Amino acid sequence: MTYYEQHKQDFLDGYFAFLRIPSVSTLPEHADDIRRAAEFVRDDLKTSGMENARLIEAPGRHPLVYADWLHAPDKPTLLLYGHYDVQPAEPLEEWHTPPFEPTIANNNVYARGACDDKGQVYILLKAVEGFLKTSGKLPINIKVLIEGEEEVGGEHIEAFVPANKELLKADAALVCDTEMFAAGLPTITTGLRGLVYGELTVNGARTDLHSGVYGGAAPNAIDAVAHIIASLKDAQGRFLIPGFTDNIRPPAPEERAAWASLPFREEEYLEKEVGSIALVGDPAIPVLERTWAQPTVEVHGIRGGFIGEGAKTVIPAKAVAKLSMRLVADQTPAEATAKLKSAIEKACPPGVTAKYEVIHSAPPSLVDPSNPFIKSAAAALTEVFGVETVYMRSGGSIPIVGLFLEHLGIASVMIGFGLPDDNLHAPNEKFHLPNFYNGIEAVAKYLERLGSN
Amino acid sequence: MTYYEQHKQDFLDGYFAFLRIPSVSTLPEHADDIRRAAEFVRDDLKTSGMENARLIEAPGRHPLVYADWLHAPDKPTLLLYGHYDVQPAEPLEEWHTPPFEPTIANNNVYARGACDDKGQVYILLKAVEGFLKTSGKLPINIKVLIEGEEEVGGEHIEAFVPANKELLKADAALVCDTEMFAAGLPTITTGLRGLVYGELTVNGARTDLHSGVYGGAAPNAIDAVAHIIASLKDAQGRFLIPGFTDNIRPPAPEERAAWASLPFREEEYLEKEVGSIALVGDPAIPVLERTWAQPTVEVHGIRGGFIGEGAKTVIPAKAVAKLSMRLVADQTPAEATAKLKSAIEKACPPGVTAKYEVIHSAPPSLVDPSNPFIKSAAAALTEVFGVETVYMRSGGSIPIVGLFLEHLGIASVMIGFGLPDDNLHAPNEKFHLPNFYNGIEAVAKYLERLGSN
Repeated sequence: MTYYEQHKQDFLDGYFAFLRIPSVSTLPEHADDIRRAAEFVRDDLKTSGMENARLIEAPGRHPLVYADWLHAPDKPTLLLYGHYDVQPAEPLEEWHTPPFEPTIANNNVYARGACDDKGQVYILLKAVEGFLKTSGKLPINIKVLIEGEEEVGGEHIEAFVPANKELLKADAALVCDTEMFAAGLPTITTGLRGLVYGELTVNGARTDLHSGVYGGAAPNAIDAVAHIIASLKDAQGRFLIPGFTDNIRPPAPEERAAWASLPFREEEYLEKEVGSIALVGDPAIPVLERTWAQPTVEVHGIRGGFIGEGAKTVIPAKAVAKLSMRLVADQTPAEATAKLKSAIEKACPPGVTAKYEVIHSAPPSLVDPSNPFIKSAAAALTEVFGVETVYMRSGGSIPIVGLFLEHLGIASVMIGFGLPDDNLHAPNEKFHLPNFYNGIEAVAKYLERLGSN
Repeated sequence: MTYYEQHKQDFLDGYFAFLRIPSVSTLPEHADDIRRAAEFVRDDLKTSGMENARLIEAPGRHPLVYADWLHAPDKPTLLLYGHYDVQPAEPLEEWHTPPFEPTIANNNVYARGACDDKGQVYILLKAVEGFLKTSGKLPINIKVLIEGEEEVGGEHIEAFVPANKELLKADAALVCDTEMFAAGLPTITTGLRGLVYGELTVNGARTDLHSGVYGGAAPNAIDAVAHIIASLKDAQGRFLIPGFTDNIRPPAPEERAAWASLPFREEEYLEKEVGSIALVGDPAIPVLERTWAQPTVEVHGIRGGFIGEGAKTVIPAKAVAKLSMRLVADQTPAEATAKLKSAIEKACPPGVTAKYEVIHSAPPSLVDPSNPFIKSAAAALTEVFGVETVYMRSGGSIPIVGLFLEHLGIASVMIGFGLPDDNLHAPNEKFHLPNFYNGIEAVAKYLERLGSN
């Protein structure tokens, strides 16, 4: 019986304790919880036997957690990355169980962060612990860097990585923040979409006005936002921002063929995952390509005017829309932002002013599957899950992958054990319990393989 | 010295006590305040010497206040109307003084309801009080009907009027819920816009989804609302709903000429009242005609998605937009609603469902200035204010005017003493104090004139 088999209950208890900390990074009232979560990770690393375990502070920022173990000369160094912060749980009324009281049902753990990314961070911690607790050493050199701002733009790590290249020097990174393509199918992610997230602010009249008295003469800020949004994409989802799609690198023919062979049924995806009456986007482009290798323009919410109960007849003076773009290689945040701003300026209706301000951004990324760190990871995953590892891309954004490449010159091996219906960023987030345990074992096998090469 | 001159301070004290009751009809938590405001009006009428003063109740509805005095045989009967409910005070942070603690500054009273409509209701109460307290009788027969749901759709009065034609039988109504065209310019309003106010609900995915994972395939409910809204009017404000403007009766040439002679400066209106960089709408149509005799389609707010601090990358599954139309003669709510619904259906993007539900509606109205009740009112106003009374229309909606015409067969004399910059439905609502006192006197003179005819 291995250490990993012996400690299943301990692992579950520790994982639950981690999930109970509501480390919501977007909300200032959770600052103490953020700190508690960071300390939890640091203390766990220290207890395992990792060295130099500590919080890295910066004014006004959530702490990073760092630790290392560097006693394997002639062996490679791997930098482990994850994040301890989570998305807000709202809307609370849609959760079937309390978001910060993990609950097991149907062999799943339900909680905010169960998968994204506390579950996967905990997998990294326990894989490392197994070696250190049984043999007192690791098969390779390990550096750990866990952040608390992934859901809120990651400003701290973005400043820290370029300023600490020596400390973070490694041969590759293991980024555990992606998902499996399907249950039972071990997966490595080779591409990520980039992101530009910002606020579109429209100002009209000096103050909200009575729509009876002023309707027909005073500008309506939300109406203006609607016109601007409708000018960026048509109702069928075709992009209207001039030049927006100019620099898209199409997937290689082999990539398209591999994706076409993945177990994906569009009807099932529509029915079980999305649950709308139909999907959107160009039907000539397969869904996986639309969500992995095509950009998006998306509105997330509009603040302004009256949204309470009943009827208030105001002309909203101001409206703020949360508006993002997902980008794919070879689009860049700077170029896409410039095109968006110019499209907004052009679409801005008379009587109002419109301004787009970026909150955070990340470039898209693509990695090479022939990289030896990726090949070893694929072999380890295949060994534990018993089936061939598949390669996919992800439509999400993990800015750290671009940072590691740019400043440390290393590729990121992106593996993850979440499932497509794990409700990331939505009510009733979950993590499949067998994937939690297999994940720990797979990461352990990966470290072992890297050490025996 | 008249009764009205002697009691200026008493009137002010009573007015302030009335304003201190936060009778916000749109918010259920103010149900007790609504009742207190109704009782305030009833008790004031009773104390004045009006008869049969009482609350009229209906399940789940705000009370009506009724009173009468019917001892002037061979004299006409006038039905006085106003409303004791007010709009919500939000956004509170934009008020310079507390909305429910009336404050005098620059000869204005600042408070929610100062003008709309508590100030004007109080004018009616005090005008009547003067006659009863000094002579024990009124120059004509008076019925009073004050409602508490004007800002929330007026369902109670809408059901009550048709069911109580005998009780409410009168020769004309005096509706005191409009405004003066300009300071010092006594004004009678001869036309009102109608209103259809409702909610546009768009449903996309089953739940909010991660925009990285699903962006490009899952429908976005707010994006769909934006496309629907943008399909109803173009960015220049031209109506796109098929047939929407078919039944608009243009103002008579005399009416247009009279409006053109009113003291209105577009630059001043833009600068002092609206405060945007420019006005909207067809510049070929004068502003007064755009706001009085042209319809609108207006969005008041959109609920759904994420509008909190920071960045949450959700694809909103559901969005609800508050959407209204102002209507002018001879449009009807039923016909306009049908056209709107059909336009929404046609504009609804793929992947979502859209539904428009009316919360309340009112037809537009136009009255004939040659009506003797209107002519007497004009004379009384001219007498008190010392200048010729002008006729205008209002862009707002007072559903009761249509109800009185339809069910009681009477015209409404619409006079009011608010000013165009009184911030109705907005922060820092105010009422010009001299207009408060002149209003009481003008209504008294009007009753006197009707009694001496």
